[in-house]
Amino acid sequence: MKVIEYNAIGNPADVLEIKDVPSVAPGEGQVRVKVLATPIHPSNLLQISGNYGTMPTFPAQPGAEGVGQVAEVGAGVSHLQVGQHVLLSGVGGTWREEITGPAQAFIPVPAGDIEQMSMAVINPLTAHLLLKSVQALKEGDWIIQSAANSAVGEYLIQLAAQRGINTINVVRRESLVPQLKSLGATVVLVDGPDLAERAKAATNGADIVYAVDAVGGDTFTRMVQSLAYGSKIACYGVLAMQMPTLDLMAVIFNDIAVKGFWLAKWFETGSAEEKQAAFGEIIPMIAGGKLSSKVDSRFTLDEIKQAVTRAGESNRDGKVILTP
Amino acid sequence: MKVIEYNAIGNPADVLEIKDVPSVAPGEGQVRVKVLATPIHPSNLLQISGNYGTMPTFPAQPGAEGVGQVAEVGAGVSHLQVGQHVLLSGVGGTWREEITGPAQAFIPVPAGDIEQMSMAVINPLTAHLLLKSVQALKEGDWIIQSAANSAVGEYLIQLAAQRGINTINVVRRESLVPQLKSLGATVVLVDGPDLAERAKAATNGADIVYAVDAVGGDTFTRMVQSLAYGSKIACYGVLAMQMPTLDLMAVIFNDIAVKGFWLAKWFETGSAEEKQAAFGEIIPMIAGGKLSSKVDSRFTLDEIKQAVTRAGESNRDGKVILTP
Repeated sequence: MKVIEYNAIGNPADVLEIKDVPSVAPGEGQVRVKVLATPIHPSNLLQISGNYGTMPTFPAQPGAEGVGQVAEVGAGVSHLQVGQHVLLSGVGGTWREEITGPAQAFIPVPAGDIEQMSMAVINPLTAHLLLKSVQALKEGDWIIQSAANSAVGEYLIQLAAQRGINTINVVRRESLVPQLKSLGATVVLVDGPDLAERAKAATNGADIVYAVDAVGGDTFTRMVQSLAYGSKIACYGVLAMQMPTLDLMAVIFNDIAVKGFWLAKWFETGSAEEKQAAFGEIIPMIAGGKLSSKVDSRFTLDEIKQAVTRAGESNRDGKVILTP
Repeated sequence: MKVIEYNAIGNPADVLEIKDVPSVAPGEGQVRVKVLATPIHPSNLLQISGNYGTMPTFPAQPGAEGVGQVAEVGAGVSHLQVGQHVLLSGVGGTWREEITGPAQAFIPVPAGDIEQMSMAVINPLTAHLLLKSVQALKEGDWIIQSAANSAVGEYLIQLAAQRGINTINVVRRESLVPQLKSLGATVVLVDGPDLAERAKAATNGADIVYAVDAVGGDTFTRMVQSLAYGSKIACYGVLAMQMPTLDLMAVIFNDIAVKGFWLAKWFETGSAEEKQAAFGEIIPMIAGGKLSSKVDSRFTLDEIKQAVTRAGESNRDGKVILTP
């Protein structure tokens, strides 16, 4: 049974190793799950290279979500049967062929598009919570987001469109406009020094009441300038790898509040009710094809070095998926 | 009757003029109030020089608060009598000898220390609301503030000490330590590159859960670094005249939220109940001498150019008061 592992912080293609370990039979209350698909997220690469909010303990096994199929059921397990598809987000270390763990850590999901379901939690849930937990939004409101062509950005466009929320989507290339429009983007703007003016001009006089930023740097600063009095900006990434200048005049006189969002902490601190409600909204949309993301390429575990290299390339178009 | 006025944005000592206008008799429901003392706030100077959140309409009359004495009462006024001391914060344009206006705009206050009462609203209320409305605080909590020797800073020290909240007070000069300690400061630190480390070391292991910043620039950035997970930083000024770099890693991974505070907006949007509650807490403390600020110097209206020049000097030690 193959497992991806690393024992030092560094460039993922250099430090990741593939190991062969024995398969583990499920004990009482456990199941053995065969991993069908598990995505490579930018946050995985950041963690392996030491640029994330938490440091791993070694040996570390990367991978944070995926979908699998129950292969063997231990004693005392009643709610899962062999063949059932399950989410892997509760167990950690998903870049491997098999996972044996407590049955209640695996959430049963309908069989269907395995690749879409393998990405059902981290990005869709981030988009969902960015739209629900930071700023109160209602139908007809205008919001602005950066990195609009990221996976979270595209899920956010789809979720906002379903709620009648207008999105101004900031990207770096004109060529991305048609794809985002087809997902339901209200407006797509290419980033630039006059972003705030163009954003404000795009709403037919309506206020922009909320910004969602995954870029940082100048993009953050420009989005703050586009916001109406009393608005919020939520930050969940720093893709530009550059810290922004904070316009305190806007913070004080325009009452702009800055909030962070980190899904890992929400998993730690959110109540069981909140989590059930969030999964209950997201999973049926994924299963029903109402919420989806692009897949750039697929690799086996043996191809892990090529896979993480591809995942780190800027011309990637969608998610890189491992299919053990 | 002398009135201070300006008709152009510029250096206060250059653009302020003194005018002589006729005294206005109070109409029905009005009173005529003789101004006893009215302070020069940094925000007044910022507004005159065009560096504030709102632009004046000309001719503009500066001055935002003070204390006066009722000199004449119009018909139909029952709750004010000649001789009563009143606050001037509801009327605007207080740098003058007399104000005639609606009786209900003047809040009656006990006769007592006229200079302390003339400063009763803007700075004490800012300090009070910074401690009440942004972050929930309880006895024993640790907070950090910059510009600790400003008027707001000193009021905040006194208010926090009365509630048993520990304050780490950031200043630019060692010589300010004894004065702030005598007001109830728990810790006083001179700003510097290692401010965050020294602040964290000063609490005997307790978390710093809230920062209050009036400086911006590097000081803001260092205070953010000193905060515990899930804390907030409230900004109410940019004395350094320099925008800070925002550490988005702290915002995202340490869940630091940034909020602005602007008293003028609170006056506009706060409910009558909120305002009554706030005044009801602050005024008795001022009247009873439990909350006070230093006075640097006094000037008459004829000395307005010297007064605003002094108010803008960095070695000023307390507030500059106009005593018409």
